[in-house]
Amino acid sequence: MSYNLLKGKRGIIFGALDENSIAWKTAERVFEEGGTFVLTNAPVAMRMGAIKELAEKTNSQIIPADATSLEDLENLVEKSTEILGGKLDFVLHSIGMSVNVRKGRHYTDLNYDWSEKGWDVSALSFHKTMQTLYKKEAMNEWGSIVALTYIAAQRVFPDYNDMADNKAYLESIARSFGYFFGRDKKVRVNTISQSPTPTTAGKGVKGFDGFIEYADKMSPLGNASADECADYTITLFSDLTKKVTLQNLYHDGGFSNMGVSQMVMEKFVDEE
Amino acid sequence: MSYNLLKGKRGIIFGALDENSIAWKTAERVFEEGGTFVLTNAPVAMRMGAIKELAEKTNSQIIPADATSLEDLENLVEKSTEILGGKLDFVLHSIGMSVNVRKGRHYTDLNYDWSEKGWDVSALSFHKTMQTLYKKEAMNEWGSIVALTYIAAQRVFPDYNDMADNKAYLESIARSFGYFFGRDKKVRVNTISQSPTPTTAGKGVKGFDGFIEYADKMSPLGNASADECADYTITLFSDLTKKVTLQNLYHDGGFSNMGVSQMVMEKFVDEE
Amino acid sequence: MSYNLLKGKRGIIFGALDENSIAWKTAERVFEEGGTFVLTNAPVAMRMGAIKELAEKTNSQIIPADATSLEDLENLVEKSTEILGGKLDFVLHSIGMSVNVRKGRHYTDLNYDWSEKGWDVSALSFHKTMQTLYKKEAMNEWGSIVALTYIAAQRVFPDYNDMADNKAYLESIARSFGYFFGRDKKVRVNTISQSPTPTTAGKGVKGFDGFIEYADKMSPLGNASADECADYTITLFSDLTKKVTLQNLYHDGGFSNMGVSQMVMEKFVDEE
Amino acid sequence: MSYNLLKGKRGIIFGALDENSIAWKTAERVFEEGGTFVLTNAPVAMRMGAIKELAEKTNSQIIPADATSLEDLENLVEKSTEILGGKLDFVLHSIGMSVNVRKGRHYTDLNYDWSEKGWDVSALSFHKTMQTLYKKEAMNEWGSIVALTYIAAQRVFPDYNDMADNKAYLESIARSFGYFFGRDKKVRVNTISQSPTPTTAGKGVKGFDGFIEYADKMSPLGNASADECADYTITLFSDLTKKVTLQNLYHDGGFSNMGVSQMVMEKFVDEE
Repeated sequence: MSYNLLKGKRGIIFGALDENSIAWKTAERVFEEGGTFVLTNAPVAMRMGAIKELAEKTNSQIIPADATSLEDLENLVEKSTEILGGKLDFVLHSIGMSVNVRKGRHYTDLNYDWSEKGWDVSALSFHKTMQTLYKKEAMNEWGSIVALTYIAAQRVFPDYNDMADNKAYLESIARSFGYFFGRDKKVRVNTISQSPTPTTAGKGVKGFDGFIEYADKMSPLGNASADECADYTITLFSDLTKKVTLQNLYHDGGFSNMGVSQMVMEKFVDEE
Repeated sequence: MSYNLLKGKRGIIFGALDENSIAWKTAERVFEEGGTFVLTNAPVAMRMGAIKELAEKTNSQIIPADATSLEDLENLVEKSTEILGGKLDFVLHSIGMSVNVRKGRHYTDLNYDWSEKGWDVSALSFHKTMQTLYKKEAMNEWGSIVALTYIAAQRVFPDYNDMADNKAYLESIARSFGYFFGRDKKVRVNTISQSPTPTTAGKGVKGFDGFIEYADKMSPLGNASADECADYTITLFSDLTKKVTLQNLYHDGGFSNMGVSQMVMEKFVDEE
Repeated sequence: MSYNLLKGKRGIIFGALDENSIAWKTAERVFEEGGTFVLTNAPVAMRMGAIKELAEKTNSQIIPADATSLEDLENLVEKSTEILGGKLDFVLHSIGMSVNVRKGRHYTDLNYDWSEKGWDVSALSFHKTMQTLYKKEAMNEWGSIVALTYIAAQRVFPDYNDMADNKAYLESIARSFGYFFGRDKKVRVNTISQSPTPTTAGKGVKGFDGFIEYADKMSPLGNASADECADYTITLFSDLTKKVTLQNLYHDGGFSNMGVSQMVMEKFVDEE
Repeated sequence: MSYNLLKGKRGIIFGALDENSIAWKTAERVFEEGGTFVLTNAPVAMRMGAIKELAEKTNSQIIPADATSLEDLENLVEKSTEILGGKLDFVLHSIGMSVNVRKGRHYTDLNYDWSEKGWDVSALSFHKTMQTLYKKEAMNEWGSIVALTYIAAQRVFPDYNDMADNKAYLESIARSFGYFFGRDKKVRVNTISQSPTPTTAGKGVKGFDGFIEYADKMSPLGNASADECADYTITLFSDLTKKVTLQNLYHDGGFSNMGVSQMVMEKFVDEE
């Protein structure tokens, strides 16, 4: 269903890897709602076949960009405004990667070169993206920038490893840069803290299936899906949320404010 | 502008006093978005002339109800589902009143009978409303309940008096009841923590104008207006936010995550 | 062991019911650290045999007081300063009771007369106590007021019922009154959010044993005991924490910042 | 005054630069309370004359260490346990530096090489320190690790620049590593979020004097001093706080929970 919520709006969507990606679902929904956009991803992460399919489906162009490279980001922003025919109204940052997680290094035994790489890709890239947009005056007034994050930034999830610290840094950037972007350009900046989602990236985390079940049983409405996250992101890109900024918004079926649910407690009562 | 976001949805809107009320603006926007609803307010608080105007404008009926009276609430819920022709999809609770504030009692010199009255009207009424809806199975699945609140529930605003404590209780009810309403009926419950708004009620608070200016200068996007709050509430009533629940959502131009803004700091630098 | 941290300090300790009470343990530790105090409890809640034993052990006097009665509180404060020979340096509020919990009413089926009674006893009593102390100028500068609370004020624990909302109100009072007590009298006000503790009161909550185990397995250092809570309270009464105020301090082995622990996850992995 | 709170305890204190440093004050207080320790600081940051004076005064030895170098940290930990004659009971991390702040780069115009340097020194160094302590099994059970931080990790203070993001990362490390250190070694990890303090480092931040005044007027008890921070840190190193872990503890005269104070509001009311 479409409400035409984003009619006439232009943007950039980072991080659509394959059809399981939240960014992929968001691109589809933005298209349905009348928005136009450029798709981008890191050259090394791109699965060209897949993303071309999405681009065709949504009448979009693809501009590869390494989000840790200022040069790539500058090129991306310049080209995007050219292609789309004007300044931008929305940007989705959906980028995250930890080398320590991928290579199975425990949090108490980090390789710090890998930590730095993960921090640059997952967190600093958000600053680089916004600094590029800000300097190039590429955003329209009342535009909206959203980054995806996870509650591990606030609470301990042991297997989330150094991604927790990266997400904490990312969320801080949203606040810090959000102040200047709001004050100077009337642009809002928020993060969405999403339920654990069985994306291709998410599946890399150890014990992910059991964890998905735990989160689902803890959440009064169950886990939020990638499709639902795309719906929610649409509202944040729309003109109906103009004064929401600097926020970390939980989209998680209620997980974030649960201490314990009855379904989780049953695991402990059964034993007695 | 309308997106038809609430086409076919039915609800109840509490607290539309006059055209400055957030509930009034919300009623207008819900109507524009295709929703139908019953308007209600306390018999003692009603300004019949005004609310009748709103009812006519939005093709709504008015059912007076004292939100501290279970009997009134039961009547309201029953009549509303009859009038609207089905179960409810949305409810807005926009009710607050402190006798201590009205009568100028300082927070260190409370009259506790008045504290109780204010607590019953401002906070417990939200539980009573939800308990009535829950017991009568009056909400459709994936319905949405929203109450308005203020950041004084988290931080000290000296003139907000015992309303701060009432709002803390209200927000706790949203979480506590939200769990059961989510788990059992798939209904979400959230609070919107709105900028200080020059409604007729807000104006009763001492030093309100200076305070509005302070909040505006602290917020990177400035204070959120009643109209903007109505827009935001629409998104929470729509099908695009189905997995957002148990949240206290700041709609405040960024105020809640500011430590200090440059505009506020200038008041302190000038002196040096 | 004693450090003489409270030598020469005078205070009032509310809520020592029996030797399982946190207030009881605190009284013992305050005595060891050189503090002198008056013990108080509600006439109806007092187990005279037990509290007399504590009074003898700690050279204290007992003044019964219903903490919902201003008259009783005024008498308590006046008598205490007389008995102790000067103004007060510390006060512990350890009072909580929900009639709905005691009588087994579900949170979606509250008896609101009972809600009001529980709110008055558990939450408003803290305001009444502070208002009495404030008006009578009964606190010394740099005195310390502490109330015990529970994390259900922030997150949902389904069986905690309306005590969650009461604790949210209590914590808000700590902030609201703490501002005035700090500004005007240099007195600090904080709440300690303690692990679930198998006190006589705690045991009244449904499924408490399973819940104690859950909290213990979630907390990296395990649950905090009543003895440890007494130790922690000593630090907040001492001169070493003079600038800590308006805070809700988690004393819980780390529970409050956990998303999930490995020991809890094992319950979900076993199934796969 | 001394309570012998740290009698027999051994530790390492990072970051004592000169007599204005919080770490310096803490070293003095730890010494008074009976603790023994090694002082350390980065070779480039050391003011040898000053720190030698502190070392003499507290019967301590100095081991220079660059907290970004694993080699230096390993040497520091090994030597410290040798010198002190046993495993460690406490560690204070008081390290922070932003090249962007020092060189006057605006937050919307960061030099990312400098960002990385500041992140490594201010945030990652805390992980490196803990990883070294953890791997070398250098902490006694029920030991206590504390890092100093600032509320800019939660809220926007425009001039705090990328240090805000660094502190957010630091606090996340405290939680993430605190879980493993607690579970595996019974060691607690916390951060103290201190009032703005006129240390030599703090003074580098633009508009610092006006900001100190703002924070002081916002806080019901006024700003917390470096001496008071040292007192508070003593309590966290003592045996009285064994179950406090994973916490970010505000030591700020109440600033963190203020929305506005009367003294700040007066700046806005005068104008009307």
